[in-house]
Amino acid sequence: MRVTQRVKRILANYEGENPGTKGNLARILMHGKLGGTGRMVILPVDQGFEHGPARSFAPNPDAYDPHYHYQMAIDAGLNAYAAPLGMLEAGADSFAGAIPTILKMNSANSWATEKDQAVTASVADALRLGCSAIGFTIYPGSEYQFEMIEEIRELSEEAKSVGLAVVVWSYPRGGDLSKDGETAMDVTAYAAHMAALIGANIIKVKPPTAHLEQPEAKKVYEKEGVDISTLSKRIAHIMQSSFNGRRIVVFSGGAAKDTEGLLNEIRSIRDGGGSGSIIGRNTFQRPREEALALLDSIIKIYQGKA
Amino acid sequence: MRVTQRVKRILANYEGENPGTKGNLARILMHGKLGGTGRMVILPVDQGFEHGPARSFAPNPDAYDPHYHYQMAIDAGLNAYAAPLGMLEAGADSFAGAIPTILKMNSANSWATEKDQAVTASVADALRLGCSAIGFTIYPGSEYQFEMIEEIRELSEEAKSVGLAVVVWSYPRGGDLSKDGETAMDVTAYAAHMAALIGANIIKVKPPTAHLEQPEAKKVYEKEGVDISTLSKRIAHIMQSSFNGRRIVVFSGGAAKDTEGLLNEIRSIRDGGGSGSIIGRNTFQRPREEALALLDSIIKIYQGKA
Amino acid sequence: MRVTQRVKRILANYEGENPGTKGNLARILMHGKLGGTGRMVILPVDQGFEHGPARSFAPNPDAYDPHYHYQMAIDAGLNAYAAPLGMLEAGADSFAGAIPTILKMNSANSWATEKDQAVTASVADALRLGCSAIGFTIYPGSEYQFEMIEEIRELSEEAKSVGLAVVVWSYPRGGDLSKDGETAMDVTAYAAHMAALIGANIIKVKPPTAHLEQPEAKKVYEKEGVDISTLSKRIAHIMQSSFNGRRIVVFSGGAAKDTEGLLNEIRSIRDGGGSGSIIGRNTFQRPREEALALLDSIIKIYQGKA
Amino acid sequence: MRVTQRVKRILANYEGENPGTKGNLARILMHGKLGGTGRMVILPVDQGFEHGPARSFAPNPDAYDPHYHYQMAIDAGLNAYAAPLGMLEAGADSFAGAIPTILKMNSANSWATEKDQAVTASVADALRLGCSAIGFTIYPGSEYQFEMIEEIRELSEEAKSVGLAVVVWSYPRGGDLSKDGETAMDVTAYAAHMAALIGANIIKVKPPTAHLEQPEAKKVYEKEGVDISTLSKRIAHIMQSSFNGRRIVVFSGGAAKDTEGLLNEIRSIRDGGGSGSIIGRNTFQRPREEALALLDSIIKIYQGKA
Amino acid sequence: MRVTQRVKRILANYEGENPGTKGNLARILMHGKLGGTGRMVILPVDQGFEHGPARSFAPNPDAYDPHYHYQMAIDAGLNAYAAPLGMLEAGADSFAGAIPTILKMNSANSWATEKDQAVTASVADALRLGCSAIGFTIYPGSEYQFEMIEEIRELSEEAKSVGLAVVVWSYPRGGDLSKDGETAMDVTAYAAHMAALIGANIIKVKPPTAHLEQPEAKKVYEKEGVDISTLSKRIAHIMQSSFNGRRIVVFSGGAAKDTEGLLNEIRSIRDGGGSGSIIGRNTFQRPREEALALLDSIIKIYQGKA
Repeated sequence: MRVTQRVKRILANYEGENPGTKGNLARILMHGKLGGTGRMVILPVDQGFEHGPARSFAPNPDAYDPHYHYQMAIDAGLNAYAAPLGMLEAGADSFAGAIPTILKMNSANSWATEKDQAVTASVADALRLGCSAIGFTIYPGSEYQFEMIEEIRELSEEAKSVGLAVVVWSYPRGGDLSKDGETAMDVTAYAAHMAALIGANIIKVKPPTAHLEQPEAKKVYEKEGVDISTLSKRIAHIMQSSFNGRRIVVFSGGAAKDTEGLLNEIRSIRDGGGSGSIIGRNTFQRPREEALALLDSIIKIYQGKA
Repeated sequence: MRVTQRVKRILANYEGENPGTKGNLARILMHGKLGGTGRMVILPVDQGFEHGPARSFAPNPDAYDPHYHYQMAIDAGLNAYAAPLGMLEAGADSFAGAIPTILKMNSANSWATEKDQAVTASVADALRLGCSAIGFTIYPGSEYQFEMIEEIRELSEEAKSVGLAVVVWSYPRGGDLSKDGETAMDVTAYAAHMAALIGANIIKVKPPTAHLEQPEAKKVYEKEGVDISTLSKRIAHIMQSSFNGRRIVVFSGGAAKDTEGLLNEIRSIRDGGGSGSIIGRNTFQRPREEALALLDSIIKIYQGKA
Repeated sequence: MRVTQRVKRILANYEGENPGTKGNLARILMHGKLGGTGRMVILPVDQGFEHGPARSFAPNPDAYDPHYHYQMAIDAGLNAYAAPLGMLEAGADSFAGAIPTILKMNSANSWATEKDQAVTASVADALRLGCSAIGFTIYPGSEYQFEMIEEIRELSEEAKSVGLAVVVWSYPRGGDLSKDGETAMDVTAYAAHMAALIGANIIKVKPPTAHLEQPEAKKVYEKEGVDISTLSKRIAHIMQSSFNGRRIVVFSGGAAKDTEGLLNEIRSIRDGGGSGSIIGRNTFQRPREEALALLDSIIKIYQGKA
Repeated sequence: MRVTQRVKRILANYEGENPGTKGNLARILMHGKLGGTGRMVILPVDQGFEHGPARSFAPNPDAYDPHYHYQMAIDAGLNAYAAPLGMLEAGADSFAGAIPTILKMNSANSWATEKDQAVTASVADALRLGCSAIGFTIYPGSEYQFEMIEEIRELSEEAKSVGLAVVVWSYPRGGDLSKDGETAMDVTAYAAHMAALIGANIIKVKPPTAHLEQPEAKKVYEKEGVDISTLSKRIAHIMQSSFNGRRIVVFSGGAAKDTEGLLNEIRSIRDGGGSGSIIGRNTFQRPREEALALLDSIIKIYQGKA
Repeated sequence: MRVTQRVKRILANYEGENPGTKGNLARILMHGKLGGTGRMVILPVDQGFEHGPARSFAPNPDAYDPHYHYQMAIDAGLNAYAAPLGMLEAGADSFAGAIPTILKMNSANSWATEKDQAVTASVADALRLGCSAIGFTIYPGSEYQFEMIEEIRELSEEAKSVGLAVVVWSYPRGGDLSKDGETAMDVTAYAAHMAALIGANIIKVKPPTAHLEQPEAKKVYEKEGVDISTLSKRIAHIMQSSFNGRRIVVFSGGAAKDTEGLLNEIRSIRDGGGSGSIIGRNTFQRPREEALALLDSIIKIYQGKA
């Protein structure tokens, strides 16, 4: 399929990047059932690192096998598959060229007593495994936020110099942030903006609630009458905060909810102009056929067919 | 489109390569109208370097514009586009992600008094431009053959380590080789074999004639009764000489001929099991519509439809 | 002996690795009495570093001599011998080519007040000593877990690039983990999974108890009815957690017990599909003849003869 | 099999090498039907590079396939398989760990007008492909001899520092040497000695004739009554010239001859104390069954059974 | 003098080292009055760094002059002289070739509040000053033990690669160790063992007392009946803990005592099989003639003449 006008307009926003990085963004944007629409659905499987294998895969034991996820992402017609080093290595040869991959470069685990992550891969790994992008989590607000930001800065510079794209998971936590604050409107917008500022090509945040965490920010939102009354308005504000829509922003599935709740959330992301979804647990913790059906429903929503 | 079984079988032959290099081979093999068939047609535009702009582009002045060739390769549904640094740079951003590109790393010119080429690009260039492969010409037989082989050895090691594929133009010339010898059966088979031995992923040679140049080789061909009576038999022998068909071999258009002559040559390449064609002058020296029609005819032949 | 089909199937799971690393895995898998079966028994002698020489060797003073352990591993027909730098250097020449060796790259000692280890060797050491693999301990859960993971990440990338295999000792400890938690089912499965995710080729964990340490994980094990009632079921769950059996996992001897208790444990490892054992103290703290007899019993179990 | 006393005595001669290099020599010396005897038979397949594919493989077309040679070396129970980069890459994964391999690092071709070779691989290639040794040809006497010697010096230093062994093909040619002189007694002894002097671990030369090429040398041979009357005496003199037997020296098959002639030559090599044979064309230009039978006869001779 | 059989047997234990490092060990072992006996006495002068000049040299003001110590070591017929960078530089030219020197690479001072040392020289310094070895102190048990071990690991790898020998001062302190514990039997044996494990060629520890510090170790010593009743028995146990006597271990003068006390300690070291002594303060804080006499007495003891 030809690179569409829609995708070309998106690529044109990345005017600081070299053609290699744009080409890899194009690969992701042009792949799968949403290829060419400017929307994307990505399958991330780093849950095993974060929560351990049983909590991740016991509900659907086929998912213990790394090949399962590659195949799922391909069969569902997703845009890309993101995972830590070992998961990608375990299928990189069998699925060479089959789907754009994103090497998740850092990970935490359930036992961490500090809000930090370990770097577990290199840009050279991403190249030899044929990845299109690197992925990296930052925790704005944590006591390690500056170290994390400096790590991704270095990795990002290296990755972009060799034509890879950079995906940043921007998850505020720690410091004075309340639990509710982690998904507050102002905090999420801030997290997305910060990711854009450090050069992220694709930004991942959680769908924001209407909560406003920071008093100073609250005053402004109220004074200026920023409309954050519905999720789609809030999504639109996130896009606005991400260089007025010049950056791709994808949203995670958020808190566990029923399927209809999830699909309505997707509709709001779409209506708010969000770039798409990154759906992990909601995918691989269901039986394969159910997961494929769910992903198809999500894709239809982004296609404007549902 | 899913990676086909045919392409998977081809990739499996590259067992010394990492998943990145296999992924880039897959990108080329899966792109365009021949995507998934295991065949390929590549557009090379290094003619300007070799013969100067007027000899190359005056017959079809639109072709002076580097964008013309990108667009041609895309519109014709080819597998890849190969060109020197400047040509790729001149369109790399406009056509990011639109078609796999091959950075031709060395070039000669009309004024060269020695059978050598200058290296004009780096592996880092290939990465920042988003290329899928590097291309390199060797002149087996020339007084510079060992230097050229040592150059591609180094570039090839570097390119493969970062997941790029390697295309070698293997053009015997110089030394004791006669002009006819440059395209002789024995010489061309040897040139293809040598390219495979130095680690080429894709080998480009000229369609061989029935001439046998080297007396020692001639004896063997005759004694063993190697059938080289038709072009398709000769193509089959080239494939055999390229690790028994384990390497992709593409053929240039050969000596100037009329369209029907060219299409018959393509049919022979197809029937002999050749991997495809790399068609430069025969493409860009015709008016655009004619060229598109010609390439479509060629593709139909490789698809078995003509 | 030819590389067996069983071993070839195991090697095929390491699809991200180059042929050098696979070759070294093959050397280990094809060596000794279990050569070709896909099972392995490894002798590790890093006890002296961890607990001092007297606690390690006084029960069997011949074991003070580094040559003793090389000879033991050879005479018992084991697959490999693992030790810190000094121990390997002290016999590397006498036993060159005699048995695959694993250079243990980091070590703690009894006086450490932090749950960390010192790196005591380099990848260059492993090459000049002719080792087949490097070994590295991580302490998931400790306050140094991320530093340790980042150390092995770097060493692993370097080791694999030169064709060495990577063995990770994954020993949870520290943080909020209770003493019982260190060998809990959920914790051990998580530790094995994490080692796989960071790219370990061979994973070493302790045989897990039926204890479930983490409340969130406990809920899942109970809800999903994961059968962990017997050691062999628990071993099977470890293998499942290690990329569904795509990674080699070996088990240490666990808590001190009598010989029959140890052999029964081995039977459970075998029945659960575990890849084998790594038996240190239980080997070198017995008189040589007893140790040889014990190892022979263990090997017979893995051979299915006992 | 345990490293034999015979092999240990051979290894002890390499006292300048680190345990890694000795370990790789041991791997070669302990592999195959001659494993442990101190003798070796190696299959080299660089003929395609030197003479082209048809002259090399047309007599036995199965040999066009790189897998054919790996399988031949394994099935015949040889000690090692030596080939250029592309040949090894084409089977390195399928045959990982199956047989020690030697990466032939430089090659000439039939069209070379100078007595030189091109370097076509790196030490890093040897490591990632899991090779036990590098191989390199020098042409003592040629106008490029010093360049070649300096190339192998650098490669050898690098290879040994990472535990690889070094095999030197020492083929005098060029300069004032007559055609007969290339295999003369004095010249071959000199070529073997020179290879030993530059640090070769394994030396390959051609079986010497009784011809004495250099007048000054001739005088000494005659004055001192060096007995070179039979091939086995001449082989003994080669071994003597290779540090009094402290270096492994293997002999190529020499000029084409009938099978009995070849076997008699092998008997002379054995009786003269030669380390073994390196048999290319005589192997792969025969049908597989014939080749296996021939190699078995050769091995039986070295085993002292024929 | 020829390298003696005794020294050759010692060198043979260093089988992981290259001939350069063995040669430097031989230089030390063959120098001075004890040359060839396998015993050694070394003069270390790093006291000034540790305690300041007045505490070190005021009792014998001639010792302020660096030449004094070189001359002392030479005149006394010692095996080697060890000192920090500045001390060696101050006499390196005058005494070039006169006595083997050991460059002490790290030092603490009286004002340090942490149990660590500063690295004050490089391996390049050792080479340009013509040293035979580098020396390095580790403090097993201290909060910096892992950093110190990692420092010597790197320096040791570099030093050995250029043919230098490595001497490790292994001085337990810090953490939970009591003051008595620092010279306890179990702790000293552990310290010596750890130095051997990290690759020390020569190990320096303090003569151990009969105290057993670690409860777990105490149990083993008692249960196994390890005889530590006399100093010579304890020395023998240190040697056993140093790879069963495969490593050279030298002992410092220990706590202040009268001359006869010191000589008796030396006799115990000799009788226990210790490799020798390293005597600083006891040497240079006496008048020169007295010191020479003392050293002569010590040497006579090691020669078995007293």
